[in-house]
Amino acid sequence: MLTLSDQRRRYKPKIPALLQDPRSVAFEKIKTLDVDHEVASLFPLTSKTSALKGCEGSCTLQMPKIGVVFSGGPAPGGHNVVAGIFDTLGAGNLIGFLGGPDAIVSGSYKELKKAEIDHYRNQGGFDLLGSGRTKIETPEQFQAVLNVVKKLKLDGLVIVGGDDSNTNAALLAEYFLKEKALTCVIGVPKTIDGDIQNPYVPISFGFDTAAKIYSEMIGNLAHDTVSSLKYFHFIKLMGRSASHLTLECALKTHPNITLISEEKKPFQTQIKELADWVESRAKTPYGIVLVPEGLLEATLDVAGALKDSHGNINLSGISTETFLMESLQKELTARNFKGKFEPLAHFYGYEGRCGHPSNFDANYSYALGITSALLVLHRQTALMAYVGQLDRPPSEWTFGGAPLTPLLKMQTRNGVLKPVIDKALVDLNGKPYKALQKNRAVWMKHSAYENPGPLQFAGDPQITDSIPLILQC
Amino acid sequence: MLTLSDQRRRYKPKIPALLQDPRSVAFEKIKTLDVDHEVASLFPLTSKTSALKGCEGSCTLQMPKIGVVFSGGPAPGGHNVVAGIFDTLGAGNLIGFLGGPDAIVSGSYKELKKAEIDHYRNQGGFDLLGSGRTKIETPEQFQAVLNVVKKLKLDGLVIVGGDDSNTNAALLAEYFLKEKALTCVIGVPKTIDGDIQNPYVPISFGFDTAAKIYSEMIGNLAHDTVSSLKYFHFIKLMGRSASHLTLECALKTHPNITLISEEKKPFQTQIKELADWVESRAKTPYGIVLVPEGLLEATLDVAGALKDSHGNINLSGISTETFLMESLQKELTARNFKGKFEPLAHFYGYEGRCGHPSNFDANYSYALGITSALLVLHRQTALMAYVGQLDRPPSEWTFGGAPLTPLLKMQTRNGVLKPVIDKALVDLNGKPYKALQKNRAVWMKHSAYENPGPLQFAGDPQITDSIPLILQC
Repeated sequence: MLTLSDQRRRYKPKIPALLQDPRSVAFEKIKTLDVDHEVASLFPLTSKTSALKGCEGSCTLQMPKIGVVFSGGPAPGGHNVVAGIFDTLGAGNLIGFLGGPDAIVSGSYKELKKAEIDHYRNQGGFDLLGSGRTKIETPEQFQAVLNVVKKLKLDGLVIVGGDDSNTNAALLAEYFLKEKALTCVIGVPKTIDGDIQNPYVPISFGFDTAAKIYSEMIGNLAHDTVSSLKYFHFIKLMGRSASHLTLECALKTHPNITLISEEKKPFQTQIKELADWVESRAKTPYGIVLVPEGLLEATLDVAGALKDSHGNINLSGISTETFLMESLQKELTARNFKGKFEPLAHFYGYEGRCGHPSNFDANYSYALGITSALLVLHRQTALMAYVGQLDRPPSEWTFGGAPLTPLLKMQTRNGVLKPVIDKALVDLNGKPYKALQKNRAVWMKHSAYENPGPLQFAGDPQITDSIPLILQC
Repeated sequence: MLTLSDQRRRYKPKIPALLQDPRSVAFEKIKTLDVDHEVASLFPLTSKTSALKGCEGSCTLQMPKIGVVFSGGPAPGGHNVVAGIFDTLGAGNLIGFLGGPDAIVSGSYKELKKAEIDHYRNQGGFDLLGSGRTKIETPEQFQAVLNVVKKLKLDGLVIVGGDDSNTNAALLAEYFLKEKALTCVIGVPKTIDGDIQNPYVPISFGFDTAAKIYSEMIGNLAHDTVSSLKYFHFIKLMGRSASHLTLECALKTHPNITLISEEKKPFQTQIKELADWVESRAKTPYGIVLVPEGLLEATLDVAGALKDSHGNINLSGISTETFLMESLQKELTARNFKGKFEPLAHFYGYEGRCGHPSNFDANYSYALGITSALLVLHRQTALMAYVGQLDRPPSEWTFGGAPLTPLLKMQTRNGVLKPVIDKALVDLNGKPYKALQKNRAVWMKHSAYENPGPLQFAGDPQITDSIPLILQC
């Protein structure tokens, strides 16, 4: 019996022609962003790293030995990053660290072999290697990692992770150079939240699949509410800092209300607007509200609102969607609202992190894997692998390395000034947000829901190969 | 831009050859179940109705005029029932009642036209007509329905609904005959819960799609937990009376623990077994637990357990999955358990009621629609339309009408003895349950999860045309 996983194992990711032969690639220097001067003083050896773009060339260097590690929450496409590295290096040159960054400290790894790689091609999850959230911070940890990469004679360490993990990649790259270790460090931009974006990186891998999975569920709920005609669905979506997933899902499904953390709308204003809307729907007492996970953290006056209603409850103990529903119910009661208001809460998060990667994410993450291997082959370090022009067909994608140090800003974390990669938030002057703005009033009033349906892997390419709408904007 | 909904509109449901030409069908009488004698006394005019099976024949009768109504919660395939009726009757002969059974009392309807039907082909939801949960019970309601069907000169009334709606269909059929009205009444077995099953009806439509949607999410969570290695996911699934959906999803995804309401396991035993399991996973502190929505209602000693911990809280106010998690946490604390236990709660319900119907549900519900129209064409009443041999290819499916009265049993509801159609529960001696039993011990210990992935509509028929596993057993 053929399963979808079997079928996906046979899928050949689409990539630019250049990436199909690692021996035919060279890198050229391109315009590089400036480095913050405080950051530069902390990264004397890597802050002058150039941005690189892949181009035609040739390379006869020996294939390097690479170690790869997953860091943080899973994202669809992680296994294809590993497959891309493996296919570039050939057998015998790739090890995988087991269980996240802890493993590059302790040296827990396995050699990756073809049969195992083949089993995980185009499969969701991070289960080939596991993952973890340990930060490499102490001198002892750095020393331990150095010992591990030296002992394993690694030419490269590829860290597949989010903003924190890429900050760690920058620190390790600088440290290795300082210690005269020969291991290059390359970061790969992973996060379903989509909050790694910079002039080189249009979006992180995993975002497309997660948004499609959530949008399937949202579309189904929207379809249900116009069938049942009685429920107000409050749907929280993952994204603690940035609302990209909520924005993307809104553009896909056309909910009545889309809350965006980055708007920093005062909480009471939000509740009043929601109450106005519920009142306006007395004859159509149903609707869809999208709520980004980080809404309450981003809302200036919410601490006050929480104290009023719950005493001194810790924000992290509050379920955003439930708190919103309860606050709205209170407001409606205060207004003496007599209509129907039957709210239901949903949260989609973990469901989107390990689904079968969409064609877009399968292609994109595979291209990122090859790119990271090529950067190590060319002895480049302190870079984030990137694939550009993602809004065009894969044959037209560009690829290369974006220096990590220009992405770092000095920020205070837990009272200590540190270099960190800022999370990219929704730009209220950007085209995706403006696309939402343009439609918001109509969607609020009418039930203009779209039901994009489940992620498809066969059939018309317009459906199977679609790309994130925020990239299309 | 082609959407999945567009693509699905073009899908031609696969049906038995006989159903492709309504003029070539006759019905033959087949073995009929006995009617309870108390029921028979309440249904003097319909209790001798024969079971019918479609066969080759010919029919020159004039096409009837039919009204169709959706009743209760939506289920994927509802629109194809309507399309099947429409395609059989031809234009001008089908009206749809708007907003559920209320509409057959008030006479709220619209004539259904080809363009609208075409728009809704193979689409999820009940939004073409809306739905509702009103029961037709009072003499005034019966009289009002009679007036409506007479005024509209309906030859047939097709009620698409669950157990209660089909009970209503039986009552209306008897009443119409008593009042010498010419309107035939046909029920169509709908419910995602799968709790309409009888010797003629293998499963209700909608079940397959809902189970596939939930299984996609469960598979993703399972994949997440073997990647993150730290969460215990407690996943509640719709099914207040019967655990068919939970059983089907378990057979598809192989969770560690599958709770089945029908086992009526004492609550404290359940909690102790769960605690033993969590303790046994100290080195692998993660897992997947499926919880049927009706678990607490079915558990004999749960009222006591609730009183112990919560005082006199009403069962309907309790979130089953949360209560289970909390009770388990208490038990672990009592045992002085020092390992990791990070539980997360999920509920999948509404998400499964309005998804794009699977090929199986699209085919099956379309065949049910045609069958119900043919039964009216042949002036048959008091029947549930059925399609049989669903475990074979559609070309081999049988179809016909199952008398409603033998399905009725006298039961006390709200203190009144009434004829009702019993919900079909999971049979603890049946093959599907035994298939679970056979694997339970292994699944509990190991992470043998399957990730079936999102519902597919194009590609290999082994994937797109799969049928429920409980039918395959």
